Amino acid sequence: MAIVITAFEKSPDGGLGLARDTRVRWALEEVNQPYEVRLVSFRALKQRAHLAIQPFGQIPTYEDGDLVLFETGAIVLHIAERHPGLLPVDAGARARAITWMFAALNTVEPPILELVVVKFLEGDRPWKAGRLPLVEARIRHRLGQLSDWLGDADWLDGAFGVGDLMMVSVLLRVRPSGLLGEYPNLAAYVARGEARPAYKRAFAAQWAVNNPALPPA
Amino acid sequence: MAIVITAFEKSPDGGLGLARDTRVRWALEEVNQPYEVRLVSFRALKQRAHLAIQPFGQIPTYEDGDLVLFETGAIVLHIAERHPGLLPVDAGARARAITWMFAALNTVEPPILELVVVKFLEGDRPWKAGRLPLVEARIRHRLGQLSDWLGDADWLDGAFGVGDLMMVSVLLRVRPSGLLGEYPNLAAYVARGEARPAYKRAFAAQWAVNNPALPPA
Ligand SMILES: N[C@@H](CCC(=O)N[C@@H](CS)C(=O)NCC(=O)O)C(=O)O
Ligand SMILES: N[C@@H](CCC(=O)N[C@@H](CS)C(=O)NCC(=O)O)C(=O)O
Repeated sequence: MAIVITAFEKSPDGGLGLARDTRVRWALEEVNQPYEVRLVSFRALKQRAHLAIQPFGQIPTYEDGDLVLFETGAIVLHIAERHPGLLPVDAGARARAITWMFAALNTVEPPILELVVVKFLEGDRPWKAGRLPLVEARIRHRLGQLSDWLGDADWLDGAFGVGDLMMVSVLLRVRPSGLLGEYPNLAAYVARGEARPAYKRAFAAQWAVNNPALPPA
Repeated sequence: MAIVITAFEKSPDGGLGLARDTRVRWALEEVNQPYEVRLVSFRALKQRAHLAIQPFGQIPTYEDGDLVLFETGAIVLHIAERHPGLLPVDAGARARAITWMFAALNTVEPPILELVVVKFLEGDRPWKAGRLPLVEARIRHRLGQLSDWLGDADWLDGAFGVGDLMMVSVLLRVRPSGLLGEYPNLAAYVARGEARPAYKRAFAAQWAVNNPALPPA
């Protein structure tokens, strides 16, 4: 029985790897699990059939026989628990790796997502120029703390694992703003993530969906 | 060796249970684990000793011998994995419960936290009145989807578990705004969470820290 994930039929980023199916593809590639992809249109995302498996009308989802999951965090953790490679065996080290997944998704990502609000969702409002520096300051605050923690280590907590996979994926979303480049150790950390063969395969697969006629970016 | 968690010496909410140590206390009470609390001042949160265990200068943290964790999500999951009561035994049902933890923390909580931004962090800015309805609309969008999912069920996915503990905790933060009350099934869901004896013990313990001279609210 094949693992089936969902992804955008046409991703708003045109295949730059920022849509969240990339995170799931990356995890599956790290543990060498084959998977199939069901592409979903924006319209279909909001229809009953999809809402029955993803109550918030989003991608990605994960199906493996009778098991249906959503939320990138839960999907990546499930993959990491079933196959060796993304979670340490030692129980304490395992709990630490999971800590960094939650830090990525509940502490670092929320301020980064506000860039979409100020630039796009509220991009035509008169407060855009006034708010942008405030949103950026809150992002810098988190990036500075993360940069201090990482120091000159390669990964957040020992060997590469689910925590890094998620944190690198979150940081990729802030790179286009230029803010990541202000923290050279974080920029190098993200580059180490992107250099992993599993990331490259994941990126290429989602790129191919969005750019069927073009070679990889 | 005792479990030690950190909490605010003086919580900004005055003990209404919204500070995140309440979530950890609740989980520990559900599985009947005793714990000790180390109270931390706002000043100490930002100092080297605390940053070494919580890189973002926040509460709560969790220490059990050599193991040091932060992030409420990771702490609650760790507690649920070590003691029966908060996670189903069946692997699929377990992964579903974890899905709802991530949905609480990465999908429902982020728009709710923006209320703090618009009302307080940016409360003296000229765009406050213009932005508030936009922030509220994004919260209503998520609450509406969650309300549709819950329907007339008691809990999100079968029996009460970590997913509900986290979702109820997140929804408690939106109740003061009045938005929760627009979704009667969600308001009743939160009330069911609060009615649990373990929640009541957790609430009373954090209330006592903040209101040493007063009886429970
Ligand atoms: N917390 C969710 C977020 C999922 C999410 O935001 N998905 C985006 C694509 S990256 C989406 O489907 N957006 C379309 C929409 O929300 O209408 C997760 O991590 O899975
Ligand atoms: N994602 C973190 C958030 C922790 C958090 O926001 N803690 C608040 C108290 S509820 C805090 O310490 N705030 C003080 C600050 O950020 O300076 C978690 O879930 O543990």
